[in-house]
Amino acid sequence: MNDTKPVNPAIIAVAITGSVPRKKDTPAIPVTPAEQIESTHEAYEVGAALVHIHVRDDDENPSSDARRFAQVAEGIRRHCPDIIIQFSTGGRGRSHAERGAALVWGPDMASLATGSVNFPNMIYENPPALIDTLAAEMLERKIKPEIEIFDLSMLYKAAQMVDAGTLATPPHVQFVMGIQNALPVRRQTLEFLLAELRALIPDATWTAAAIGRHQLLVNEWALELGGHLRT
Amino acid sequence: MNDTKPVNPAIIAVAITGSVPRKKDTPAIPVTPAEQIESTHEAYEVGAALVHIHVRDDDENPSSDARRFAQVAEGIRRHCPDIIIQFSTGGRGRSHAERGAALVWGPDMASLATGSVNFPNMIYENPPALIDTLAAEMLERKIKPEIEIFDLSMLYKAAQMVDAGTLATPPHVQFVMGIQNALPVRRQTLEFLLAELRALIPDATWTAAAIGRHQLLVNEWALELGGHLRT
Ligand SMILES: [Zn+2]
Ligand SMILES: [Zn+2]
Ligand SMILES: [Zn+2]
Ligand SMILES: [Zn+2]
Repeated sequence: MNDTKPVNPAIIAVAITGSVPRKKDTPAIPVTPAEQIESTHEAYEVGAALVHIHVRDDDENPSSDARRFAQVAEGIRRHCPDIIIQFSTGGRGRSHAERGAALVWGPDMASLATGSVNFPNMIYENPPALIDTLAAEMLERKIKPEIEIFDLSMLYKAAQMVDAGTLATPPHVQFVMGIQNALPVRRQTLEFLLAELRALIPDATWTAAAIGRHQLLVNEWALELGGHLRT
Repeated sequence: MNDTKPVNPAIIAVAITGSVPRKKDTPAIPVTPAEQIESTHEAYEVGAALVHIHVRDDDENPSSDARRFAQVAEGIRRHCPDIIIQFSTGGRGRSHAERGAALVWGPDMASLATGSVNFPNMIYENPPALIDTLAAEMLERKIKPEIEIFDLSMLYKAAQMVDAGTLATPPHVQFVMGIQNALPVRRQTLEFLLAELRALIPDATWTAAAIGRHQLLVNEWALELGGHLRT
């Protein structure tokens, strides 16, 4: 996925590698560290200012290997000195204990899903103790969180953590729509999420993202509603 | 929990035994089948028309034992001939495979949570395949579902199932608020859930329930918003 998103009018972000597609599905997808670094560099040269990093193991499986994260991040730092580096702490095929392992490297930002929800064929597991552990690590290392909101309760949980001082502030929030069994692509839903965000975490910045064919529609809504864009 | 709730002006429901409290916490709680039957009978004599049933094993642990469900339900049917019998398919301490085992008895209604969410110290696990299995069993046996909504995506999932014909209609919906890490006790939230329910499953009946000290407040909101009461 070569997604680019202006995070504010001056910031364009790139998600170089998601957790799902493989070379056999999408031959152009960068999965080795060298490919990821080069792909980020290309995006950086045309204006990307933030990179969201997932890593894979040698068999292209999603991985939490801290050395792999460090290898990709160090290469990116060398080629793109002032890019904002964001690590994924997401879960597909990764054990709970390992998901925060790469945070010791000290990226500028890291993603954090503040609850559990059903995905198409599985539970996306973010149990309370894991959320607390990841948030504490990010707070201690001054890593800015990007809160991934896959369901409404995750927004309330993030707001409670901000109030309790257990989440670094202000967080950046991403609403994710269009995943089967989680939130649908629905304008009313995004407007309600946004109203609640403004009421409960007024200093948060936000974006909205959708999966697949609804991506452009949700971008348009986000723009109309004053959010940052992901394309 | 001797909760009583008018499900419509003519229906009062009783939840004789939840999944959490034990004799040592609440000595009056009925946990043996004989106690559950007698407790239901007492409520029936003062007007209860629906009973929501959880069962325990001999050590007071939440159980899915189909024989235990049958024993309680048969006793209740004998003492309270026209009461509506609703079985829980909820999860605490119960394996996924066992959670629908008691539906073969053929209760009038059964609860169904249409998604997964964080609870205070754990994930409340309702993976997609389990939801489909329970809903199919209920559809086949003409058991009316009470959809338990612990987070927003569960409402959208229920609506999709109604549209797909995989959920018996019209469902009864219960919004559950005030569980830590799930939905808070918040008026705006209930109003939004209700607007979405009316838009997506217009023939559903509904109630709202809260845990512990917020129970009366949420009852009041439900009454003001045209729902059925749980006290
Ligand atoms: Zn380069
Ligand atoms: Zn990611
Ligand atoms: Zn009796
Ligand atoms: Zn129950």
